Amino acid sequence: MYAIDLNADLGETTAGNPVADDAAMLGMVSSANVATGFHAGDPHSIAGTLADAARAGVTVGAHPAYNDPAAFGRRFVDYTPGELADEILYQIGALDALARANGTKVSYVKPHGALYNTIVHHEAHARAVVDGVKAYSPDLPLMLLPGGIAVDIAEQAGLRVIREAFADRGYNPDGTLVSRREPNAVMHDPEAVAQRVLQVATTGSVTAIDGTKVDVRAESVCVHGDSPGSVEMTRSVVARLAAEGVEIRSFL
Amino acid sequence: MYAIDLNADLGETTAGNPVADDAAMLGMVSSANVATGFHAGDPHSIAGTLADAARAGVTVGAHPAYNDPAAFGRRFVDYTPGELADEILYQIGALDALARANGTKVSYVKPHGALYNTIVHHEAHARAVVDGVKAYSPDLPLMLLPGGIAVDIAEQAGLRVIREAFADRGYNPDGTLVSRREPNAVMHDPEAVAQRVLQVATTGSVTAIDGTKVDVRAESVCVHGDSPGSVEMTRSVVARLAAEGVEIRSFL
Amino acid sequence: MYAIDLNADLGETTAGNPVADDAAMLGMVSSANVATGFHAGDPHSIAGTLADAARAGVTVGAHPAYNDPAAFGRRFVDYTPGELADEILYQIGALDALARANGTKVSYVKPHGALYNTIVHHEAHARAVVDGVKAYSPDLPLMLLPGGIAVDIAEQAGLRVIREAFADRGYNPDGTLVSRREPNAVMHDPEAVAQRVLQVATTGSVTAIDGTKVDVRAESVCVHGDSPGSVEMTRSVVARLAAEGVEIRSFL
Amino acid sequence: MYAIDLNADLGETTAGNPVADDAAMLGMVSSANVATGFHAGDPHSIAGTLADAARAGVTVGAHPAYNDPAAFGRRFVDYTPGELADEILYQIGALDALARANGTKVSYVKPHGALYNTIVHHEAHARAVVDGVKAYSPDLPLMLLPGGIAVDIAEQAGLRVIREAFADRGYNPDGTLVSRREPNAVMHDPEAVAQRVLQVATTGSVTAIDGTKVDVRAESVCVHGDSPGSVEMTRSVVARLAAEGVEIRSFL
Repeated sequence: MYAIDLNADLGETTAGNPVADDAAMLGMVSSANVATGFHAGDPHSIAGTLADAARAGVTVGAHPAYNDPAAFGRRFVDYTPGELADEILYQIGALDALARANGTKVSYVKPHGALYNTIVHHEAHARAVVDGVKAYSPDLPLMLLPGGIAVDIAEQAGLRVIREAFADRGYNPDGTLVSRREPNAVMHDPEAVAQRVLQVATTGSVTAIDGTKVDVRAESVCVHGDSPGSVEMTRSVVARLAAEGVEIRSFL
Repeated sequence: MYAIDLNADLGETTAGNPVADDAAMLGMVSSANVATGFHAGDPHSIAGTLADAARAGVTVGAHPAYNDPAAFGRRFVDYTPGELADEILYQIGALDALARANGTKVSYVKPHGALYNTIVHHEAHARAVVDGVKAYSPDLPLMLLPGGIAVDIAEQAGLRVIREAFADRGYNPDGTLVSRREPNAVMHDPEAVAQRVLQVATTGSVTAIDGTKVDVRAESVCVHGDSPGSVEMTRSVVARLAAEGVEIRSFL
Repeated sequence: MYAIDLNADLGETTAGNPVADDAAMLGMVSSANVATGFHAGDPHSIAGTLADAARAGVTVGAHPAYNDPAAFGRRFVDYTPGELADEILYQIGALDALARANGTKVSYVKPHGALYNTIVHHEAHARAVVDGVKAYSPDLPLMLLPGGIAVDIAEQAGLRVIREAFADRGYNPDGTLVSRREPNAVMHDPEAVAQRVLQVATTGSVTAIDGTKVDVRAESVCVHGDSPGSVEMTRSVVARLAAEGVEIRSFL
Repeated sequence: MYAIDLNADLGETTAGNPVADDAAMLGMVSSANVATGFHAGDPHSIAGTLADAARAGVTVGAHPAYNDPAAFGRRFVDYTPGELADEILYQIGALDALARANGTKVSYVKPHGALYNTIVHHEAHARAVVDGVKAYSPDLPLMLLPGGIAVDIAEQAGLRVIREAFADRGYNPDGTLVSRREPNAVMHDPEAVAQRVLQVATTGSVTAIDGTKVDVRAESVCVHGDSPGSVEMTRSVVARLAAEGVEIRSFL
């Protein structure tokens, strides 16, 4: 029997305004990347999401970001490595404190937004993220885009890396994501998205826009809950996995 | 032989600009109230102070605040209790992560600025602070102004309370501090300040502005390092304690 | 023929996440209270709303707030009067610069959230708001809750006050709003809400929850656009006003 | 008779902690680059500096920055051009409002920190700064490092550019500043610094570290007031200029 982890970004309420339908998503995913307050989320709303995740039996990951809430962590910020490593450490510690008080704990780390994308190629920031995670615990896995420089640095440093695939993004034949400026960047057909997740679950691979099969060795698939449409899309993915007998289960 | 704890607010570098002479103070005090990033301090500069405190053998406390960096945490902010408790917890967790990666740990909590003053009389915020500390660990002592409502709430909740005195503040006969709007609010005579600390060390009491002796049962005395004059003042206190054979030692 | 101003809070996108349906609302209201970046909104998204308001011929007001974006400006912050007056002035100047570059200008000021509610009774903050507005221009009207202390202070200072009513809030017989903790705080029946607006438009009064008619002398009515339901509610108000031949027109 | 403008960064109080000795500097310089709240300064402390500048007859410039107060605006942030232009405009408008209420006005713009350095070579950000300034007023001069791409873009856009030299920085023969990682980056000899300023005042040129004379066509010289040593250095520059009969006078 096959199994796959589904992860989603949650806990991103900003200034009291929810960004995603956390409750709906926690009923479907097996892992929650929970905001730490640097790109979104305030401690009290984050704590609520953590308590809900604990009740739902969903594994919690820290979702640290550049400290740029005005842009939701979506801009590169030119930190020194020391600054970045300590901000990663700070965010994990803060979130783990909230998690433990709410019946769960931080079980992995997935960088957010511009930080996630930057460490695919920016060696100093990739090392800083790895340093920050290891400083908290060498046993925390790091969830990353397959093929990036951060994967190698993390594995050389002894961290477990969880490679993830995206449920609804187009892939180039080399395994990189199609740029959002290109027409095939995002998949909108629920059938195709469900098929993608099924393929990852059964083979660890994705099919690129030219039909090439790319072995990304993904252990998790990222789904979204930040619009009514994306929640619905996730629902159809979950239904398809159930129909095919694929279990949704944390990578832990 | 007598002993007394000296504590000071450190780690308050804001935007790269140091506020106190942390290095000088870490050579003199036994406890450091280290900023957590909400009123001052960024994770990297805080980490530097924590590493220095570890090397100096100085006990580290978390110094959480209302999230109001523009005003250095000096303004009351009307949080709900749930918000405040979770922000306290977040700050302790974040600081403890930085501390443990730098050879030390959070051993107590002292609220900062407006929060410190508010919980002397604001029951809901006092309870929230106690809840936040207990959620992290019921073994963390809370450093407070003697006589305030927070002292009772903390002790009823089973937390150890460290009552502190101020080295250079005038006291009213009822044990409250002379308002900063009054002429006797701050003592400027090094001799009188040293005498105050000596009195606390040997008796736990302070002498009020009218000569009344007030038993504040203080286990720690707060000194300052945020100006050349205040560092000098602390130096003269330390010299006097040495001359009198009073040891400077953490309350732990 | 009767006319009434409809105003709504807009420009409140936080971290790239829209809070209200600004486009829909700008097609219905005559005045837009535009966020200034202190409780919500970043300069670029605010500029987009201002350009849309200019195109739609909607009058623009500044919507200044306590500098507390984490709580969307919904918490009282204990500013000194000097701090508050200068922050009001800063926000109006910033918004007016964006407005003028986008074909419009700041034509009035409506305080936001906790600030709006605080100056109903907090004299020092009410004076500070008035001082901040006058420092920018003594010709800027101030939109306020009728009956509050800020109304008197503003009028004594020579500012024009625009009294506003709320389309969907319950009123006590003394003209204050029913607390949100009470059952009758918010009206949900579109018919009753439309009737409320019509009454304000034709008489300047509202009917309290006990049937008392209260003369609030309102020149504007506040409507909402921060949920699909609230946009729909506003649509039904607008349709009813049209059916009754009441013009929607800025108070200017 | 020769004249030169001396400019300094002021109004940078962070969280109530002064960064420079604004009062001392306002008695010596002819132009003040006043913080706008994005890298440092809060509206009330900025207003105090503006009032002092007005009293001292010192010309006021806006000193906008990337919105990164945690790092004092010293990190590159990857804004989109539209975001950056609107943030520049917002900051100028906010500061001008404070300035006009305090007896002065914004007469020029000097970008701060990482933004200042970035637009020497980053075309999109240079254009965004120029767009933001022009959107406020096409009559506002822009103070820049000679030789950078922003100079050309600003002049092509019709803005007056004020080229500035640095009183205490080493210059390479090509007119760029010696990197702060190199030994000759900063000049510490008061005599040499005074000589530098005198040379700029009389010839518009600077002498590079290899003795080459570089014509930077500077109309202003940047001096510092953020340490006792730097205030003293400026004092010796001012004395030398007086002794040589060179007037200190705004470029306006």
